Amino acid sequence: MKCTRCKKEAEVELKSHNAAFCRDCFLEFFYRQITKGIKQFKMFSKKDRLLVAVSGGKDSMALWDALIELGYNVEGLFINLGIDKFSDAAEEKVKAFASSKGVKLNIVDLKKEGIPIPEVVKKTRKVPCAICGQIKRYYFNKVGLDGGFDVLITGHNLDDETSRLFSNTLHWKIEYLQDQKPLLPSENGLLRKAKPMWRLTEFETAVYAFFRKIDYLEMSCPFSKGATFSQYKRHLNAIEYESPGTKIDFYQSFFKNMLPILEEKREKVVNFCKNCGYPTFGELCTVCRLKML
Amino acid sequence: MKCTRCKKEAEVELKSHNAAFCRDCFLEFFYRQITKGIKQFKMFSKKDRLLVAVSGGKDSMALWDALIELGYNVEGLFINLGIDKFSDAAEEKVKAFASSKGVKLNIVDLKKEGIPIPEVVKKTRKVPCAICGQIKRYYFNKVGLDGGFDVLITGHNLDDETSRLFSNTLHWKIEYLQDQKPLLPSENGLLRKAKPMWRLTEFETAVYAFFRKIDYLEMSCPFSKGATFSQYKRHLNAIEYESPGTKIDFYQSFFKNMLPILEEKREKVVNFCKNCGYPTFGELCTVCRLKML
Repeated sequence: MKCTRCKKEAEVELKSHNAAFCRDCFLEFFYRQITKGIKQFKMFSKKDRLLVAVSGGKDSMALWDALIELGYNVEGLFINLGIDKFSDAAEEKVKAFASSKGVKLNIVDLKKEGIPIPEVVKKTRKVPCAICGQIKRYYFNKVGLDGGFDVLITGHNLDDETSRLFSNTLHWKIEYLQDQKPLLPSENGLLRKAKPMWRLTEFETAVYAFFRKIDYLEMSCPFSKGATFSQYKRHLNAIEYESPGTKIDFYQSFFKNMLPILEEKREKVVNFCKNCGYPTFGELCTVCRLKML
Repeated sequence: MKCTRCKKEAEVELKSHNAAFCRDCFLEFFYRQITKGIKQFKMFSKKDRLLVAVSGGKDSMALWDALIELGYNVEGLFINLGIDKFSDAAEEKVKAFASSKGVKLNIVDLKKEGIPIPEVVKKTRKVPCAICGQIKRYYFNKVGLDGGFDVLITGHNLDDETSRLFSNTLHWKIEYLQDQKPLLPSENGLLRKAKPMWRLTEFETAVYAFFRKIDYLEMSCPFSKGATFSQYKRHLNAIEYESPGTKIDFYQSFFKNMLPILEEKREKVVNFCKNCGYPTFGELCTVCRLKML
């Protein structure tokens, strides 16, 4: 198979784009998709100070690498979740990457904060991924605001986004659907949040990490076993295989056709945590409540 | 396995209802689901004159049988599509059923109308299922109104409804989503339309037809090969298998959470066909245009 762009031998085929690429043209393609994703939502510019949340996994590491290559002003943020072996191995990978690139890395240690995930899960008996997500979002926002950053960036890809959209659609959770888009504006004490990789699939991100020889953590979180999102990813991939292009159309037509209708109906949170000022539904935010347990 | 209701030996297991039934209790369950589906939308009462569209397949035949058993005042409507062998075989099954039950059957013959499906498909090169659906809906409405019926009934089951909802959701087709519900009111020259089997799956309908020894047409339409809805049915069944109850929740939470928002946005058709008066977007309706070809 030949590269669609330069006619050299292709190394990767992308059915949903009806294309095949050699290594160099794939990297070009990857950067172009990120740039397109950024421009489509006017996410940020090269003047902005970006903070990218990195877990040590392939998606966030690939994104951090790509943003550096594209010339953005970007620092990393790693949250050590306090999960034995897993979290320390992840921190090592992230630190090694940052020093090899000479970029700044910010670190939050949940053990030092008094709320390591295993302890939180034991005490609250909540679904690990749900409570962990809440805690991470809290620190993403806090570090971003305290550090004077303009945008908080996450490495969510098209598979993450469509599987979440699919899950929220299967049960028509309107309040979640209303927030499902690659750019959330700065409002109510929340920093602007952007997902510049929303046009790229998990497969494409893995290919990028492989071609760029990014040394990421392959281990998956011990708490994430049996997460329902992976089911939905599987089904969406099967549909994509039968009808290439379905995933991106599912996501894009959602913004275009559905989101404007839902946004009219959106009710905004007005409460702020009495302790730390973070927007919340109750008197205290989740993190402040957890710290008091 | 024992019957959940009477503790006799069960003949069928229904995971989404967390139940198993013997033959008699399954029939009770089936009738209860239809009655519940009718009541939930106030579809019709025993005083109304019902016209059920029957294709000769298991779903519409099962529904006709069940409505008779439940004591509704119901006549059948069969549309002979003019598809060699298939249509005549279907007509035979429907006629035999009607005469065995002593109920009235209305028949429309598309050959006599000058628009048999194979000819229409050849002339227009349109997707067969799409154009056939339009023609059928036209005659369902016409026969219903001309005959003074109160409601037109179709045998769509939960799998039909959820696969259609899924398809419209994958591409966020708002104007189709707005019409996706088990009861469409009488408006704009259209007869009230109801789908009383929306709570029952294809599997449950097949079991009913089997238990009731209904002699239906097993052949499938030669034009329906590769229809995308069957793909979506497959995926939804796989999801249902992993999480029983997902299909009915997908459909019910849609009415409850999403439809009220969409209905506010609904734009109603105001044009009527200059020739026959049927609501249409253009000057002439599809059927009148086809007859002129």
